[in-house]
Amino acid sequence: MTLSRIAVLSLALVVALTPPLFAQQPAGQADFDQAVAAHTAANSRPGPRAIPAHVVPLPTAEISPQLQTLIASPYPPHMNADPKSAAEWKELINRRAAQAIALLPAMKEQLAVAVQPAVIGGVKCFIVTPKTIPAANRHRLLVHVHGGGYVFGPGEAALPEAILLAGFGGFKVISVDYRMPPDFPYPAAMDDAMAVWKAAVKMAKPRNMAIFGTSTGGAMTLAMVLRAKEEKLPLPAAIAPGTPWSDIDKIGDSYAANEWIDNVLVSWDGWLGRAAKLYAAGHDMKDPYISPIYGDFRGFPPTILTSGTRDLFLSNTVRTHRKLRRAGVVAELNVYEGMSHAQYGFDIKAPETKEAFTDIARFFDQHLGK
Amino acid sequence: MTLSRIAVLSLALVVALTPPLFAQQPAGQADFDQAVAAHTAANSRPGPRAIPAHVVPLPTAEISPQLQTLIASPYPPHMNADPKSAAEWKELINRRAAQAIALLPAMKEQLAVAVQPAVIGGVKCFIVTPKTIPAANRHRLLVHVHGGGYVFGPGEAALPEAILLAGFGGFKVISVDYRMPPDFPYPAAMDDAMAVWKAAVKMAKPRNMAIFGTSTGGAMTLAMVLRAKEEKLPLPAAIAPGTPWSDIDKIGDSYAANEWIDNVLVSWDGWLGRAAKLYAAGHDMKDPYISPIYGDFRGFPPTILTSGTRDLFLSNTVRTHRKLRRAGVVAELNVYEGMSHAQYGFDIKAPETKEAFTDIARFFDQHLGK
Repeated sequence: MTLSRIAVLSLALVVALTPPLFAQQPAGQADFDQAVAAHTAANSRPGPRAIPAHVVPLPTAEISPQLQTLIASPYPPHMNADPKSAAEWKELINRRAAQAIALLPAMKEQLAVAVQPAVIGGVKCFIVTPKTIPAANRHRLLVHVHGGGYVFGPGEAALPEAILLAGFGGFKVISVDYRMPPDFPYPAAMDDAMAVWKAAVKMAKPRNMAIFGTSTGGAMTLAMVLRAKEEKLPLPAAIAPGTPWSDIDKIGDSYAANEWIDNVLVSWDGWLGRAAKLYAAGHDMKDPYISPIYGDFRGFPPTILTSGTRDLFLSNTVRTHRKLRRAGVVAELNVYEGMSHAQYGFDIKAPETKEAFTDIARFFDQHLGK
Repeated sequence: MTLSRIAVLSLALVVALTPPLFAQQPAGQADFDQAVAAHTAANSRPGPRAIPAHVVPLPTAEISPQLQTLIASPYPPHMNADPKSAAEWKELINRRAAQAIALLPAMKEQLAVAVQPAVIGGVKCFIVTPKTIPAANRHRLLVHVHGGGYVFGPGEAALPEAILLAGFGGFKVISVDYRMPPDFPYPAAMDDAMAVWKAAVKMAKPRNMAIFGTSTGGAMTLAMVLRAKEEKLPLPAAIAPGTPWSDIDKIGDSYAANEWIDNVLVSWDGWLGRAAKLYAAGHDMKDPYISPIYGDFRGFPPTILTSGTRDLFLSNTVRTHRKLRRAGVVAELNVYEGMSHAQYGFDIKAPETKEAFTDIARFFDQHLGK
C-alpha cells in the first residue's frame, strides 16, 4: 500500500468520523481541537497533504471592490465543457468570442485606442494604436499573443489585453490572431507567432521591442523566445508572460492546491485539460515549445511575471520565475492578493488592472531602447 | 440568512450527499462531472469559496529532494499547543530552543562563522562573523531580528537565520536577542530592537547597513523602519523581511486558503494566534508596530521578500509587496514552489536555502554602500 493511498484512506476515515470544518474560525476550541486531531492523523505520514473541506472567506484587505466582485464570482459555466466534435468546439469558441467582442467598443473608447486589421508575415493580426503615444514610445513596438487555452479568443476576441497595455502603457501593439484547434493544432499557433515576429523585427529595432501575453499567451511568449534563440532570430528587449501556462500538463503544486479555489479555470480536469490535449495533438507535453518550463532560459531578456494567490497557475508562474532567476535572468514577480487566474485583465475599472498593466509598461520602459 | 451562511449550508449538503474527492486526478470522468456539479452548486452564489476535501500530492518539479522532504513532513507536534500559564509557555519555549541550539555547532562549522555574545544599546545580542569577509562587505553590517511568533527563539536559538546569511552572504551580523512574552509583551521586543538599531548605526554607516528577519522577524524588520521613520533615525539601505507576519490578526486570504496545507504553521488558530494575543496583550492588532501592513511604507528602503506557494503567510507577503510597490518602493518578491512558511531556512543542505540567502545577499550587495 503506498503512502499516498494510506493518506487517502486516513482522510476518508477522518471525513467519515468527524464533521467537516465549515467555518474559517472554528465554532469553538473543542471543534478546533477535534479538527486538529483528525487532520493530524490524516497527515501523520510524510507525503501528500490531506486537506479537509473548508470555506475560504472573500478576502478584502488591500483588494479593490471591483476585484472583490471578480473574486466572489461563481465558477464560469464552461468550466467543464467537453465538446465532442470540431463543430461543438467551434460553437463554444464562437459563443465566448461574441461575449468578448461585445465589450470592445467601450474598452477602445475608454482607453482611446484604435484597432486596424493587418496581415504581417502572412498572418492575420490587429494593430492597436493609442491616440497619444508618449515620445519615449514612438519607436517602440510590442507583440501580443492572446490567451484562451489555445482554443478561445479568435479574431477580435483576442484584443482585450492588447488594448489594456496599449492604453495604459501608451504603446503601439501588434496582436497576433494565430491559428488554433480544433482545425489547427500545434505547431500552427507557434508558427504563426514566429512568422509575425520575423516580420515585426523589420518594422522596429528589436531592442525597442517586447513580447507579452497572458496564460496561453504567456506560454507562447516564453516559447517564442526559445524559438528565436534556436532560430538565431533577434530577441525582444523584454517580455511579460502573465501567469504563463508554462507546463501544459497537470504538473505543479497549485494545479492541486488551488483546484476549486481558482474561480476562473477551477481545475485542469475541465475544459482546460481537454484543450491541452487538443492542442498538443499527440506531441510530447514536455516539448519546450508546448511547455516552455522545460526549455533553456539562459540568455532570456528581462521578464516580468504576474499572478495571484488563488491562481491555478501560481505554480506555473513561480516555477518560471525561479527557473529564470536560476538561469541568471532579470525576472520580476508580482502576485496579487486573492486573485484567480488572469483576473488582473478582467475589469478595466479595477485599480489592480491599471496597476498590473502600468507595472508592465514601467518594466518595458526600463528595459527597452528608444 | 447571509450569503456566507447559504454557501456553508450548500457545502454541508454537498458533503452529505456526495463522496469527497480524494485524488488529484478524478477516478473517472463521471466522478469528476459529479464533483463539478456538487462544487458548482456549493459555489453558486457570489462570496466565500467552498473547498471540498482533497489531497494535494507532493510536488517535485523544480524542487530539490531536501525541500521535498520538508514539504512532505507531517505537522509539527506543537501546532496546537495551548500553554495555560507562563510556566507552561516557558517549558515549551525552552524545549524547542534546546532542539534549535543542538543544531548550531554543525551549522557554524559548515558555514565557517563565529558567534560572540555582546550587549549593544543595553540589549543582549550575538555578533555573527564569517571567517572570511569579502572586501565589498568589510564596512557593511546587518541587523537580524529572529522569528518565532514573538515567543520562540530565545538566546542562541535565535541564531540559525543569522548564521545562514552571515555564511552564505559573507556579512557580519548582529542578531538581537529581544525580550519576549510571556514575561515581556509588546512593546518590549520592538523597544529592544530599536535600542540595538540606535547603537548599531554608530558602529557602521547606515547606508552600509540592512535589517532582515523571517516571519515575526520580518514583521519586526518592517516595524523597525516605521519606527525609525517616526523617530527620525537613519534608515537602513535595504531590508529583507522574509514571509513577514505583517498582519498579526487572521486577516489575509492565505490564512484560510493555505490552512491545513502549510505544514509549518498549519493554522492561525493553533499556538500562533495564542502567541499573537499574548504578544499584543490587549493592544490594537492593527497598530502598525504590531501589524506593520497598516503602516505608511513611503520612503522605505529597497526590500526583498521571500515566501512559498503553500505559505500560511503568502498573503502577508504579497500584501506587503503590493503595498510597498504602491508606495513607490523598490520591492522584489520571490515565491518558492510548494514551500510552506519559512522553509527556505530549515535545511542548510537544501539548494533552495542557499538560493534564498544568496539572493538576499545579492540584493543587499546591489543596494548597500561599501
